Amino acid sequence: MYSNPNYGAGNLHHSQSVSSRRGYTPSYSNQPGYSYSPGPPSGADPQLWQWFSAVDTDRSGSISVNELQAALVNGNWSSFDLDTVKMLMNMFDTDRSGTIGFAEFSGLWKYISDWQGVFRHFDRDRSGSIDGHELSEALRTFGYNLAPSLLVLIEQKYASAPTSGYGPPPGITFDRFVRACVTVKTLTEAFQRVDSDRDGWVTISYEDFMKIILNAP
Amino acid sequence: MYSNPNYGAGNLHHSQSVSSRRGYTPSYSNQPGYSYSPGPPSGADPQLWQWFSAVDTDRSGSISVNELQAALVNGNWSSFDLDTVKMLMNMFDTDRSGTIGFAEFSGLWKYISDWQGVFRHFDRDRSGSIDGHELSEALRTFGYNLAPSLLVLIEQKYASAPTSGYGPPPGITFDRFVRACVTVKTLTEAFQRVDSDRDGWVTISYEDFMKIILNAP
Repeated sequence: MYSNPNYGAGNLHHSQSVSSRRGYTPSYSNQPGYSYSPGPPSGADPQLWQWFSAVDTDRSGSISVNELQAALVNGNWSSFDLDTVKMLMNMFDTDRSGTIGFAEFSGLWKYISDWQGVFRHFDRDRSGSIDGHELSEALRTFGYNLAPSLLVLIEQKYASAPTSGYGPPPGITFDRFVRACVTVKTLTEAFQRVDSDRDGWVTISYEDFMKIILNAP
Repeated sequence: MYSNPNYGAGNLHHSQSVSSRRGYTPSYSNQPGYSYSPGPPSGADPQLWQWFSAVDTDRSGSISVNELQAALVNGNWSSFDLDTVKMLMNMFDTDRSGTIGFAEFSGLWKYISDWQGVFRHFDRDRSGSIDGHELSEALRTFGYNLAPSLLVLIEQKYASAPTSGYGPPPGITFDRFVRACVTVKTLTEAFQRVDSDRDGWVTISYEDFMKIILNAP
């Protein structure tokens, strides 16, 4: 359930801001002026191909980390963090080319769309960001019953600004919400692999401890 | 030694790009058109006050996370990651106001300047970024003798782009280098506090494991 969130899946609201930002004009054939402008693979979803082409601004036929970061914006128009963009590329760059081809893009796009549905579902007050209460709800729904002190730390770490002594931390934007959830999932699963008797305690070396952390987003 | 790097300290190269980017004009007294433009505290370093005022673009008298992020750029003109900016603010916002006042700015500025000296020292090939070999050198100098597999993970995690199957990971920009080093330091010290018999192994609960990670930058 967690790795394939399906709330409101198929709603591609985010893609609209990508298209409008790029002022994209559909282009299904080679045009003068572009040295390389391959058409879509046969059977490709034309809408998905349009989005892919809008993100692939240098028309190289694949999407670089910089192109992806430039295309992805949060509801408040802030850019996605490089760490979130790298996390997404590492998930979907299945051939380890360092870029996202059209076949890989399809999975990436669905993943982001699904998470947008999750985000909207848990953003109960429609503020455009996730506050501490909404974060707790989301993680509980995903099956993580975390101690309140951990929830506060997650809220502070992924908030879009530092916590001040006056009032609650600022909210968590979309990209940082996704990264927070994937990080909790990755760390929890890694801990559980070591905790073979499932008693909530592990005995672990410095090297394995650091490996777990460095392998998380 | 690690927390107070002192290679080339006092070289304020970075500050120059802040000033020139902002097109700053010195302003030591209230001027028409600004609702609030306090002068420097008595005894303030005029140059430091000039830099502070250049970063404090809304003339509020203190620096927000957005103002600091807008002012800080890497050698390749990329922005500092929000996580690095939050890390710096959490270090120097000693009164927990959520912003950086002039007194706090002085410490922040020296810290960044010192790290710039460290960065230039270890960027042996003057590429403007830190590669895997340079990273290993830096961490060894700081007293961390990490396993090669850990060094590769750090290099990949903090590189400015995902690793492809073809060739080494891209280099690490200034802000991510600082965050990598502070993270290794924070995690290692937290591990050592638990590892009271210093044998390189700890027995730790899920909650304490997560707390250590979430408290690191």
